[in-house]
Amino acid sequence: MSKSWGYHMEVSLFGESHGPAIGVVISGLPAGLRLDDAAIAAQMARRAPGAADWSTPRREADAVKILSGAYRGRTTGTPLCAIIENTNTYSNHYQGLDQTPRPGHADYTGSVKYRGYADPRGGGHFSGRLTAPLTFAGAIARLYLQEKGIDVAGHICQVGECRDMPVDLAEPDMRAMHDAAVGFPALLPEAREAMAEAIRAARAEGDSLGGAVEVFATGVPAGLGDPIFSGFESHFASLCYGIPAVKAVEFGAGPDFAYLRGSQANDCFCWRAGKIATETNHTGGVNGGITNGMPLAVRVAFRPTPSISREQETVNLEGGAVRLAIKGRHDPCIVPRALPVVEAALALTIMDFMLEDASDAIG
Amino acid sequence: MSKSWGYHMEVSLFGESHGPAIGVVISGLPAGLRLDDAAIAAQMARRAPGAADWSTPRREADAVKILSGAYRGRTTGTPLCAIIENTNTYSNHYQGLDQTPRPGHADYTGSVKYRGYADPRGGGHFSGRLTAPLTFAGAIARLYLQEKGIDVAGHICQVGECRDMPVDLAEPDMRAMHDAAVGFPALLPEAREAMAEAIRAARAEGDSLGGAVEVFATGVPAGLGDPIFSGFESHFASLCYGIPAVKAVEFGAGPDFAYLRGSQANDCFCWRAGKIATETNHTGGVNGGITNGMPLAVRVAFRPTPSISREQETVNLEGGAVRLAIKGRHDPCIVPRALPVVEAALALTIMDFMLEDASDAIG
Amino acid sequence: MSKSWGYHMEVSLFGESHGPAIGVVISGLPAGLRLDDAAIAAQMARRAPGAADWSTPRREADAVKILSGAYRGRTTGTPLCAIIENTNTYSNHYQGLDQTPRPGHADYTGSVKYRGYADPRGGGHFSGRLTAPLTFAGAIARLYLQEKGIDVAGHICQVGECRDMPVDLAEPDMRAMHDAAVGFPALLPEAREAMAEAIRAARAEGDSLGGAVEVFATGVPAGLGDPIFSGFESHFASLCYGIPAVKAVEFGAGPDFAYLRGSQANDCFCWRAGKIATETNHTGGVNGGITNGMPLAVRVAFRPTPSISREQETVNLEGGAVRLAIKGRHDPCIVPRALPVVEAALALTIMDFMLEDASDAIG
Amino acid sequence: MSKSWGYHMEVSLFGESHGPAIGVVISGLPAGLRLDDAAIAAQMARRAPGAADWSTPRREADAVKILSGAYRGRTTGTPLCAIIENTNTYSNHYQGLDQTPRPGHADYTGSVKYRGYADPRGGGHFSGRLTAPLTFAGAIARLYLQEKGIDVAGHICQVGECRDMPVDLAEPDMRAMHDAAVGFPALLPEAREAMAEAIRAARAEGDSLGGAVEVFATGVPAGLGDPIFSGFESHFASLCYGIPAVKAVEFGAGPDFAYLRGSQANDCFCWRAGKIATETNHTGGVNGGITNGMPLAVRVAFRPTPSISREQETVNLEGGAVRLAIKGRHDPCIVPRALPVVEAALALTIMDFMLEDASDAIG
Repeated sequence: MSKSWGYHMEVSLFGESHGPAIGVVISGLPAGLRLDDAAIAAQMARRAPGAADWSTPRREADAVKILSGAYRGRTTGTPLCAIIENTNTYSNHYQGLDQTPRPGHADYTGSVKYRGYADPRGGGHFSGRLTAPLTFAGAIARLYLQEKGIDVAGHICQVGECRDMPVDLAEPDMRAMHDAAVGFPALLPEAREAMAEAIRAARAEGDSLGGAVEVFATGVPAGLGDPIFSGFESHFASLCYGIPAVKAVEFGAGPDFAYLRGSQANDCFCWRAGKIATETNHTGGVNGGITNGMPLAVRVAFRPTPSISREQETVNLEGGAVRLAIKGRHDPCIVPRALPVVEAALALTIMDFMLEDASDAIG
Repeated sequence: MSKSWGYHMEVSLFGESHGPAIGVVISGLPAGLRLDDAAIAAQMARRAPGAADWSTPRREADAVKILSGAYRGRTTGTPLCAIIENTNTYSNHYQGLDQTPRPGHADYTGSVKYRGYADPRGGGHFSGRLTAPLTFAGAIARLYLQEKGIDVAGHICQVGECRDMPVDLAEPDMRAMHDAAVGFPALLPEAREAMAEAIRAARAEGDSLGGAVEVFATGVPAGLGDPIFSGFESHFASLCYGIPAVKAVEFGAGPDFAYLRGSQANDCFCWRAGKIATETNHTGGVNGGITNGMPLAVRVAFRPTPSISREQETVNLEGGAVRLAIKGRHDPCIVPRALPVVEAALALTIMDFMLEDASDAIG
Repeated sequence: MSKSWGYHMEVSLFGESHGPAIGVVISGLPAGLRLDDAAIAAQMARRAPGAADWSTPRREADAVKILSGAYRGRTTGTPLCAIIENTNTYSNHYQGLDQTPRPGHADYTGSVKYRGYADPRGGGHFSGRLTAPLTFAGAIARLYLQEKGIDVAGHICQVGECRDMPVDLAEPDMRAMHDAAVGFPALLPEAREAMAEAIRAARAEGDSLGGAVEVFATGVPAGLGDPIFSGFESHFASLCYGIPAVKAVEFGAGPDFAYLRGSQANDCFCWRAGKIATETNHTGGVNGGITNGMPLAVRVAFRPTPSISREQETVNLEGGAVRLAIKGRHDPCIVPRALPVVEAALALTIMDFMLEDASDAIG
Repeated sequence: MSKSWGYHMEVSLFGESHGPAIGVVISGLPAGLRLDDAAIAAQMARRAPGAADWSTPRREADAVKILSGAYRGRTTGTPLCAIIENTNTYSNHYQGLDQTPRPGHADYTGSVKYRGYADPRGGGHFSGRLTAPLTFAGAIARLYLQEKGIDVAGHICQVGECRDMPVDLAEPDMRAMHDAAVGFPALLPEAREAMAEAIRAARAEGDSLGGAVEVFATGVPAGLGDPIFSGFESHFASLCYGIPAVKAVEFGAGPDFAYLRGSQANDCFCWRAGKIATETNHTGGVNGGITNGMPLAVRVAFRPTPSISREQETVNLEGGAVRLAIKGRHDPCIVPRALPVVEAALALTIMDFMLEDASDAIG
């Protein structure tokens, strides 16, 4: 079943792309958190479709309606339910998809799992649209983290062959990333240009592109996370892999660790401004599943949008082979809109562990 | 806290490296599963220390003692507890580590988390030794999967700069990987040679190496996993990141997806032997969090062992800087011994979803 | 935090009495379950306020709007969210309750828990109104159970000093209970009369009454539930104590077991119609936490509605003592409307264990 | 499956009555809690078999061996595993029980659940012996609560027809209950006498007796517990019903609420010693699932031990009827040994909620 996420919160997404509404229930929020509408709307806008020429032409206001858990502009501490109504749906593009599954999509696996009863329109519950309520949940988490002095920001590090400049894992320039977030979220002007152009080109060819994002968090205290199955990395990865199209989740140097020697990879401890820190940050801020006080650094890779307008081979469930040309409105590259969702996932993971009490020690 | 893992099972590890015993409790096992001692011992031996000149000289029999949940050689269905006694411990090598944390280890984060009360000897609860009971749990899962016709195998794909041959994700040669498992588990003889030699060289220099493994599962039915937070990838990643030193968890083409176009990346559906399959398997057997019946293909990267005998910079908790030369017995490269643990994690993930009932549909 | 309920389902309630809407998210429902609107509405009507002169004058249509998880009249298997809008709210009756807590209510404990941020109007999240979405969830469970040949019914066994006739725990007359459910749900006409009259009298005196219900399920297979912490009784009790005003949850003979000897209390096994049964059913259908195939029999006691119009002593949070006369519209006895909620809880508990797979044994 | 218990802890029991060992894993314990061996042993002794002439003649030292999670006499914060070896087992008394299930026991339901693979010796995993590790866990919880000024004590309130004196729910005499705990734990000397005598008489007749206990906790802060499914009552009941033979779990006035009017049942608020309190405590210290700062008061009823030496009717699984005379060593009344287990359950429930952080409010 679709299980909720969180140790100290319970985040539970519901909805289908072309159903009446999608939404989220968040239990375990602290009471009294001020709900800054503008800050929430800003995050929603970063993910919303139709905002730029590199994204899907489907436009949705993605206006969030809070049904519970808020009173006089603050959280009450009881479960917060928020919904987003689906307004701009053309379901006829999706007729027959339960019979001729789109390559790279969950049409086939969903039909096996739910034996043909799933709502196939627009990808149903598997739609990337479900990341809207997740972004909302992340926006709430950001408000919480802000009160604790924790900042979360990221950039697109790769689209196709184009790469952004590297970021210093030990001292990420958060300001630059926030500034970049208002447009195409890469740091180097020429990378922005090249990436956006590559996406436009792929679209023109009826094709799509993959990519990767890097996200950072600064101000995170040491001591978040638990050993073995409940480490910070485990918890973040379990959430992050819930974002459609994610195919790799890495911490710090990630797969590049394979090329390093211990004497290069180890982040030596030092004292800095009266606190223990490390000289480098290859490990991405986590040792033994527990944050060490250095910036958190994650890298997440995305597959190309599987919906392409080029004709593809597929089957029908009766046993035949068919050629399929996908209609509908799709992002030629999901990465720009996915960046705020990965940031949301990181913010939620930090918050969930922050809600853990001081009860791990006594006396 | 250290939480257990599993939706339909509960796997719970306990123990410290130099305490009386380490172990595991597994709830939710099906009743009647025959416990094949030889098969279990074979998996334990693959992970056990001291087996070869590329691993730590600490030798442990790692004999498993089952305390509950088994009767007449079969599982009873009630919680199975198994313990491994710690016999070969030299704790004096670890004196002072709670005061001068080793770079790259959890000494510092553990001392923050547990406010100085954690057992520091041999890494305590953070020790890689905890993967022994995890390997045992995986061995049980393999016995279950075997009855369902599911096979799990893997190989080392990288150690330092040395790489093994690529494996066809759509048709992995499981036989070759099983054969390689008895020695140094790479497929190409020259890769085996080069990797083992690189490890010996690193050890000679008081240094260590990182690397990566690829693990596959064949015979996995379509339909395992759930959308959003409880997908196959999420669940596997949350377990796999519990293995010390893991820093990247990837599915199928993983980060290489960033370089692909949709028209290249999409795995087109076809009919094969009366079943729906895909021509290629870039996605690694999972669409929308749910298995599609193709081989599962994961890649996991490991950081170099942080324990190196070369002197390193670190601090003491009183505020000073010190130089530390780590004693004790350590693997110059953890990857060969980690491979069976990643296989265990994949086997456990598959089993956990297999235990989900046929209740997802009615009528 | 408010955590969800269920092992194989996740049931999560949200909402405040005077907020925009209350509702429920149910994950883990089987796909393809036909949603019989009339059957659902019938259960909602049994709990709805304002239906009779023994209940609160607040009238709510309690119309359920399904936002997700349903397609073409059947469940999809993905999370089902249903909401009920709050329409008939007079919040001014509740002004000041966060400062002068009502005896017997959660005003005080809620204000401690949520530090004054909870929505106090109408009891907020603590309102009995939250049992409406729970009844809806139970109505879905009943549809599932119906397909499996399982029936759930109950009666009021006590209101104040008035008692209904005893029901044979081994052979409860389900038909009679279903028949009684359309009016005042007691079995004996004279008990119905007396109970309704006692409630009217209490109301006239500005007072309220407690009571108890008995609920049964027939057709339940043997083998549902698990030992120790996850037995049928534990799981039902944890849900049932979520219904406001419940103060005792009993199985079979319940507290009367204290008066029995083993030779009287033991339910001897026998063969009946080719199946193992028991002669008596003191145990209420559960041995060792697992159903034995006999009817499930639970008894649940309710405290009197704490809201009474008689003046009561209470405090204000500034340190003073005050006298409080509660306004607003309240049930003089919650028991008639609570009966379908307890039935819902029993139906949900059975369903949750039914969803457990056949995976507890192998080979 | 047998799932663990706890929101902030995970308590997981394992073992079979005649297997190598029984035990418990407790995750989530705070680090640094001093493990007072004498205090732990005292609790174990209260539950241990063979201590008095009213209990089973099976004698077990019930010596607890801690395998992990402790270092230098304190908890480390990592999972604590403790085992108790089974030493005094006569398994031949139990031959054939999987074929001729004992009335009132879990032999039949266990054989359905686990399809004949469960260990039948001594009740296997369903044995009351599993309450030994639960008592150990409770002893740890008591040490934690003691540091917080919280006290837990109880008494037997009923055995068969014999009743102890009533205890004032608003001001329970904890001292008297602690004093009574060293012998037969009833408060009135004549009740002690009568109860012990009734038990001896039942044993002499080859029969057994049921009963009930009341347990109290003082010093509990207001604000523990959550609304709806995760209230204090729900959480305690789910644990308490895990104790074999429990058939009713009640709070405060429990089923007697059915006889009360609101004006009698409501506990009016007052100021006492600068804190909000209630004049009476019918509700047993919980409003809306959340503790109100008054003493917690629970009452738990037990069925008579189902093992009696009198011949009983039962069946064999092949289809026949047989008469069964149970051999083995059994308590003619489980209630005296069950009292410390219920106290353990209450202590664990309080502790689990205490571990919840101060995160429910912000700002």
